[in-house]
Amino acid sequence: MTTTKRTTLAQRPSGLPDDSTWATEEVDLPAPADGEFLVKIDHISLDPAMRGWLNDVRSYVPPVQIGEVMRAAGTGTVVESNHPDFAEGDAVTGTFGVTEYAISNGDGVQKIDTSQVGPATWLGALGMPGLTAYHGLHEVGEMKEGDIVVISAAAGAVGSVAGQLAKAKGCTVIGIAGGAEKCAWLKEIGFDEAIDYKNENVLKRLREIAPKGIDIFFDNVGGDILDAALANLRHGARVIICGAVSTYNDEKLAPGPKRYMSLLVFRAKMQGFLVFDYPEKDAAAIADMSELISSGKLVARETVVEGGVEKFGETLLGLFEGRNTGKLVLKVA
Amino acid sequence: MTTTKRTTLAQRPSGLPDDSTWATEEVDLPAPADGEFLVKIDHISLDPAMRGWLNDVRSYVPPVQIGEVMRAAGTGTVVESNHPDFAEGDAVTGTFGVTEYAISNGDGVQKIDTSQVGPATWLGALGMPGLTAYHGLHEVGEMKEGDIVVISAAAGAVGSVAGQLAKAKGCTVIGIAGGAEKCAWLKEIGFDEAIDYKNENVLKRLREIAPKGIDIFFDNVGGDILDAALANLRHGARVIICGAVSTYNDEKLAPGPKRYMSLLVFRAKMQGFLVFDYPEKDAAAIADMSELISSGKLVARETVVEGGVEKFGETLLGLFEGRNTGKLVLKVA
Repeated sequence: MTTTKRTTLAQRPSGLPDDSTWATEEVDLPAPADGEFLVKIDHISLDPAMRGWLNDVRSYVPPVQIGEVMRAAGTGTVVESNHPDFAEGDAVTGTFGVTEYAISNGDGVQKIDTSQVGPATWLGALGMPGLTAYHGLHEVGEMKEGDIVVISAAAGAVGSVAGQLAKAKGCTVIGIAGGAEKCAWLKEIGFDEAIDYKNENVLKRLREIAPKGIDIFFDNVGGDILDAALANLRHGARVIICGAVSTYNDEKLAPGPKRYMSLLVFRAKMQGFLVFDYPEKDAAAIADMSELISSGKLVARETVVEGGVEKFGETLLGLFEGRNTGKLVLKVA
Repeated sequence: MTTTKRTTLAQRPSGLPDDSTWATEEVDLPAPADGEFLVKIDHISLDPAMRGWLNDVRSYVPPVQIGEVMRAAGTGTVVESNHPDFAEGDAVTGTFGVTEYAISNGDGVQKIDTSQVGPATWLGALGMPGLTAYHGLHEVGEMKEGDIVVISAAAGAVGSVAGQLAKAKGCTVIGIAGGAEKCAWLKEIGFDEAIDYKNENVLKRLREIAPKGIDIFFDNVGGDILDAALANLRHGARVIICGAVSTYNDEKLAPGPKRYMSLLVFRAKMQGFLVFDYPEKDAAAIADMSELISSGKLVARETVVEGGVEKFGETLLGLFEGRNTGKLVLKVA
């Protein structure tokens, strides 16, 4: 019998989540049954999409239910196994939830090699954010050499990988991020230009930097930044809808992109996708990105917060306040 | 020397055009030079897109200039020719402008056979509206048998053709139009269902009629109707952005589609296009639609207003008030 602390959804937030959103409980887990194993979690992923999972609406995954352990990806080590494919000591990643220990039947769990890159990177550049960047650019963005690629939330987990992948492909890459520090980092990791949306006029700067318009806009934020990009498309542009973090905590449905008729003027497409849509391409993408990391062309950065699972709620807010650079993870003490 | 009356842009409208927008002038045209011919116009096309041409903004065509003859497609007869390819008596269609007579060098002018279908149909089902419907569904919508297709402004020039083309392809077709009369007509020409947006809740009705969601939304109107469709997409849906007539007369940029994140939830694309994008496919499309007209599968309907070119401004307003069913044309007396 293993005792674990875990964070559950206490009540659905309206607007930004706060202390009343979460509860921490301590429970005893049974021993793993046949075909199951027990994982000790070491890192928990924090993702903007989590905000959407708290709303009681029809979406691409069911909402987290009240009283249920908060859904989250994580990494850990198998500490006890009755599963033929997983052995004690295996490093694994999966959607274990915000918990110290979890019982798993192996569904959606992947063994990871942490000898070259640490567990946090398996939640970032080599995890869902990296795959999101990769599939978005290739499958939806139809990225090709020479494209002018603009990325919002460019210093985030997905954006920072997307920009580096586009650079590696031979594109011109413009990042949009909040604050001088993040912008400086983007230039450091190879972005051609960085726009600080907190201190610059994005629409105007895009017109200066990319006077012929942009081929790919990889959008993680929505709102005014999406409009600024739409106003500056190039013929045949692709607008990749990956997220809309600027609107996730709005209590009412936020205004839509008022410049959407640019899609007609520039014969452009705007298309949404989810990282889960291309499972058959994940292995090749991870191999490709691992190679880029080894050769120094892809810098994987994480912002690691240390603390117990009870720190999850406070840590999550950091995402909406832009406190992280690169992937935000909670390292379970 | 030929005297012609013609309508020019007197000043740019803010909101709906009115009498002050237009001027009618009478001018003498010179005899056609070498390589030119003189056309006597009989029908003038009225299109929602015209409203956009009056704004002094960068778009897919240059704006009509103050003092310039209003741009418009039309049909007519060659009455005098110094052009090797056009002879006196030829029936033609082209962008001759809002005028009784025009001199042309043949650019963009096409000879038409008016023995089977009248000139007004060459401005409607076999003209730009018909080609718009055809290319939109095939090239952008990737229409296939069995798709659930929803069309806004379904009783208009483009929508009524689009719906019938989708039916001919074996799709289930739902039209959205204003008023019981138009809806009844849609059923008459084969639409499976018709929603009267003036008297019904479009969102609710779409959910009732198409509980599994829609595969193709062919949008001519924008606004709330676009949002209602976005809220009800099916996995992999295609949203064809053809127009946004509900917003063309707004003095400020109208709100955008607040449900655009449905593109992510349903992995859908929203794509704009223009009829001019597929010139190499026009002839085959016209042949295909002519065949459908002959076999009775495509009903070409026009609302014909009679009057001189000075009636253009007043007639154009009819488009924004939904006075027309099918293609709206001005028959020059």
